[in-house]
Amino acid sequence: MNDVIARLRELLGPDCIIDLALAEGFLSDWRGLFHGNAACVLRPRSTDLLAQSLRICHESGVAIVPQGGNTGLVGGATPDNTGLQVVVSTGLLRKIRKVDPVDMSIVAEAGATVAELQNAAAEARASFPLSFASEGTATLGGALATNAGGISAVRYGSARDLLLGMEVVLPDGRVWNGLRTLRKDNTGYALRQLFAGSEGTLGIITAAAMKLVPLPVAREVAFCAVKTEDQVLDFWMKLRAAAEGNVRAIEYLSGSCVELAKREGLRSPVEKADHYVLVELTSSRPEAGLKDFLEAFLTDRLEDGSIADAALAQSGEQQKQIWRLREDQTEVQKKAGYDFKHDVAVPVAQVPGLLRRSRAHIGAVFPDATLVPFGHVGDGNIHLNVILPAALGAERAAEQGRQISKSIYDIVVSLGGTVSAEHGIGRAKVDLLESKRDPVELDLMRRIKASIDNEGSFNPGKLFRLSRTETRSRKSGLSE
Amino acid sequence: MNDVIARLRELLGPDCIIDLALAEGFLSDWRGLFHGNAACVLRPRSTDLLAQSLRICHESGVAIVPQGGNTGLVGGATPDNTGLQVVVSTGLLRKIRKVDPVDMSIVAEAGATVAELQNAAAEARASFPLSFASEGTATLGGALATNAGGISAVRYGSARDLLLGMEVVLPDGRVWNGLRTLRKDNTGYALRQLFAGSEGTLGIITAAAMKLVPLPVAREVAFCAVKTEDQVLDFWMKLRAAAEGNVRAIEYLSGSCVELAKREGLRSPVEKADHYVLVELTSSRPEAGLKDFLEAFLTDRLEDGSIADAALAQSGEQQKQIWRLREDQTEVQKKAGYDFKHDVAVPVAQVPGLLRRSRAHIGAVFPDATLVPFGHVGDGNIHLNVILPAALGAERAAEQGRQISKSIYDIVVSLGGTVSAEHGIGRAKVDLLESKRDPVELDLMRRIKASIDNEGSFNPGKLFRLSRTETRSRKSGLSE
Repeated sequence: MNDVIARLRELLGPDCIIDLALAEGFLSDWRGLFHGNAACVLRPRSTDLLAQSLRICHESGVAIVPQGGNTGLVGGATPDNTGLQVVVSTGLLRKIRKVDPVDMSIVAEAGATVAELQNAAAEARASFPLSFASEGTATLGGALATNAGGISAVRYGSARDLLLGMEVVLPDGRVWNGLRTLRKDNTGYALRQLFAGSEGTLGIITAAAMKLVPLPVAREVAFCAVKTEDQVLDFWMKLRAAAEGNVRAIEYLSGSCVELAKREGLRSPVEKADHYVLVELTSSRPEAGLKDFLEAFLTDRLEDGSIADAALAQSGEQQKQIWRLREDQTEVQKKAGYDFKHDVAVPVAQVPGLLRRSRAHIGAVFPDATLVPFGHVGDGNIHLNVILPAALGAERAAEQGRQISKSIYDIVVSLGGTVSAEHGIGRAKVDLLESKRDPVELDLMRRIKASIDNEGSFNPGKLFRLSRTETRSRKSGLSE
Repeated sequence: MNDVIARLRELLGPDCIIDLALAEGFLSDWRGLFHGNAACVLRPRSTDLLAQSLRICHESGVAIVPQGGNTGLVGGATPDNTGLQVVVSTGLLRKIRKVDPVDMSIVAEAGATVAELQNAAAEARASFPLSFASEGTATLGGALATNAGGISAVRYGSARDLLLGMEVVLPDGRVWNGLRTLRKDNTGYALRQLFAGSEGTLGIITAAAMKLVPLPVAREVAFCAVKTEDQVLDFWMKLRAAAEGNVRAIEYLSGSCVELAKREGLRSPVEKADHYVLVELTSSRPEAGLKDFLEAFLTDRLEDGSIADAALAQSGEQQKQIWRLREDQTEVQKKAGYDFKHDVAVPVAQVPGLLRRSRAHIGAVFPDATLVPFGHVGDGNIHLNVILPAALGAERAAEQGRQISKSIYDIVVSLGGTVSAEHGIGRAKVDLLESKRDPVELDLMRRIKASIDNEGSFNPGKLFRLSRTETRSRKSGLSE
C-alpha cells in the first residue's frame, strides 16, 4: 500500500493527496453518524489525473470510496474501518465548463456545488432547478450519484431526470465520455441513467451535462392549515389540476412539526391544525397572474372546506418565514430528542393511509414517541420521522427506534412504497434493502455491478453486498 | 428444434403458436424493408406462460426475437434468415390492469396499444401523453423497448421518461416484478430505464406502470411561415419562454415538405416560405386563455419580424388540416421518389446549422436530391430525409442514398449530434453506431448485455454485435 500511495503522490503532487492527520472531514459523514479510516484521500485536479490514479489503484486491487460534498444521509461516502480504502474526492474538479441558455444546458465538473450550478445558470438568465437543504455543499457528482430529489422534484424531477450527458471514470481507469447535451438519443442502453443513483459503485462521475429550465421571475408562497390527511391529498389533486406546471413545491408538515418549530421561536401565519401544506408557485412569465390565481384558488378551498385556514405571503420576507417552518425541521427535530429518520415514498394516493397507519401504530405501541412527518407530498415522499424523548436514555431510545423503524418500513412496503425515496441506500440501509426487495431485482443489480466493476473494488459494502452469502456487517442497522 | 416447438405447443396450446404459413406478418417489418424467417411465432396469453416458454427456449439455447406491434423503423423486431429464431409476440398480453387518476398512473400489459392506453386514460379524465404516428398499432412494450418519442416529447418526454415501473421476463425465464408506481425510489440501479430502449436485447417487457398527466381541455394550433433557419430557433426560444409548460408540440417543416404536401392536394394556410413551424398549445384549464395568448404572441412575432405569416386555427377542422401537413409527410415523401430517412438529433442550438450545412452539402454534391427535413425542433430531433427522383433508377438511387446518408451522419456527429434520435438502432444502424460511438461506451453496453443475457440469445444482431470481431452482416447498411 505504501508503494501505491507513493505512486499516487508522485502523480498528483503533494497538494492533492491529503495527509491523514488532516483528513478527518473525509473519514466521517457530516452528521458524525458514520466513521471510517482510509489509506489516503486523493483530490485529483483533472479527469485525466483522476483516471490515472484509478488505474494505479486498479492494478493493485485497492478499494475506492468516491466522495463529493459528503452531505449524504446514509453513509455512502464514508470509508470502512480497515484503513485500506482510498477516498477519491472530486473537490478540485469544480469548473463550470459551459452554460448554454439557447440549448438550455449546463456542463459542469462533478465537484461544482449544486448552488454554483444554480448561480451560473441564473447569470445566464436560466435556472438549474435542483434544490435541497445542503445545496451549498453538495456537489453535482454527489447529487447525481445519489439521484438527489428535493423540493422542486415535483415539477422538474430528481437529478437523474435532469441529466443529459455524463463523463465517468470507470473502475479500470478508462474514461467514458458521454457528455452529450441531446434531448433525444436512442442509441442503446441508458448508461447515464444507470450511473445516476449507483452511489459510487460503478465508477466516478467527473462531469455532467444537465438540463436548465426558464428562470422563474414570479413566485408566490402560501401556507395552509388542513384538518385531515385526506384533505391534504384532495388539496394537492385540485392544485395539480388547476395550476398545471406552475407548482414548484408542495410540502406537507404535520401539526407536530409546526408545534416544534413554534417552540423554537418560529411563527405560523395560520390557525393551529393537525396538518399543514406549504405551496410555492413559480412562473417564468412576469404577467402570469400567479398571485391572483393562488388567492382565488385558496378562497375556493376555504369555501369548499378542503382547508381550514390559509396565508398567502405578501412579501419576500413573509415567503422566507413560511419556508423556515419547513426548512428548519431538521434542526428543530434534532433539538427535540432522539430523532429517527425515515425517507420513504408511497404512491401519491397512499399518502393519507401512510400517515394514518403510522400514527395509529406508533401511538398504540410506543406511547413515548412523537411522529413528526413532513416532506414532498406531491411525490408521495414523506420524511416519516419519529422523536423519542431525551429522558428515555440513549440505549432504550436506540432499541425503541429500531423497532419503530421496522414497523414504519413494514407499513410503507405494504402500501407499495419504498424504503428509500431520495437519500439512497449507502451503508445504512443495505440490510433493509436486502430484506424488502425482490431477489431477482437484487440479482440484476449484482450482475450489472460485476460487469462494470468486476473486482468489486468500487464503494464496497455500499448499496448491496456483492453476494448473498457475504457476511452481514454488524454495524449496518436501520437508522438513517 | 422440433422437440422445443412440440413442448412450446403443449405449453401454450395450438392457438398461441402460429403456423409459419400464417406468420408472414411477424417475419417482415411493416414497410417490407426487412425480412426474416423463424422456427415459430409464440403468442403467450400470460406473463407466466411467456416466462415458461422462455425457460424452455433458454434450456435449448434458442434465440428469441421479441415483437410488439411491429411498427419499428429499423428492423429491430424482424428475425434473421436462419429460421432458427423464435419470435415471441406480446400480442395477447393486452390488459389495462389499472388506471389511477389520483396517483396519475396507468398499469398495462405490454401488448396494449399506445392508443388503448390513451383511451383508458381519457375515460378516467386523465391523459397518457405518448403520441406518434403508429400509436394505433404500436404497443406499450414496443414503445418502451425502443424508447419511442413522438410529437409530445417536447413537453412530456419520451417513453422512458414516462415510466414508473416495469415487469420483465429475463432471458432465463425469471420474472422481475418492478411494477411500482412511485414518483421517487432511490433503491439502487435504474433498472427500468435500462430495459427501456434496450430493444429486446435484455428481456421481454410484459407490463409497465406509466405516468399520466392532466387531461388537456383547451387546445390551440397555429402554422407559421418563417424565412430563415435562425428564425425557426428564435421563434422556439421565444415561445418556450412565453408559453412555459403549455407547448405540447413544436414541429418544423421545410418549404420542400409543404410543397410536396400541396402536390398531393393539401393546402397551406400561410404564404409560401422556406421554413414552417407548427405549434400546438394545450392546457388542462378551460380558462387558461390559450387562444388569446397565442394570438398575441403571433402578432408580436409578425411585428418583430421573426415570422413572415401565421394562421391560428379557428376550428377543430382547421387544426386537423394544419396537422395533416405534418402527419402526411411519410406518405407524400414516399410517393415523391426514393426516400432516404435519417432520424437524427443535435443540441437544440445546432438545429439551424444542421439544416444549413446539410442543404449546402447535398445541394453541391447531389444535384438530383431534394432535402425534405421535418420534425421535433424543440427536441433538436429532425427527420432529415432526402428524396431521389424515380428516374434515377433503383440501383443508382441506392448508391447515392448511401453516400448521402454517410454525409448527413458525419455532419450530425460533427455538431455533437446522434445518429438515432427516436427510432433506435435495430439491425439497420448496427454498423453506423459502431463507427460513430466511443468504444468505451460500446464496451459498457456489451458488458451489461452479457451480464443479463449471458448466452447472447436475446435479439442477437440487434443494437450491437456481441463482440467487435463478430462478422459484419453484409445486409446491414445505412438505410433506415
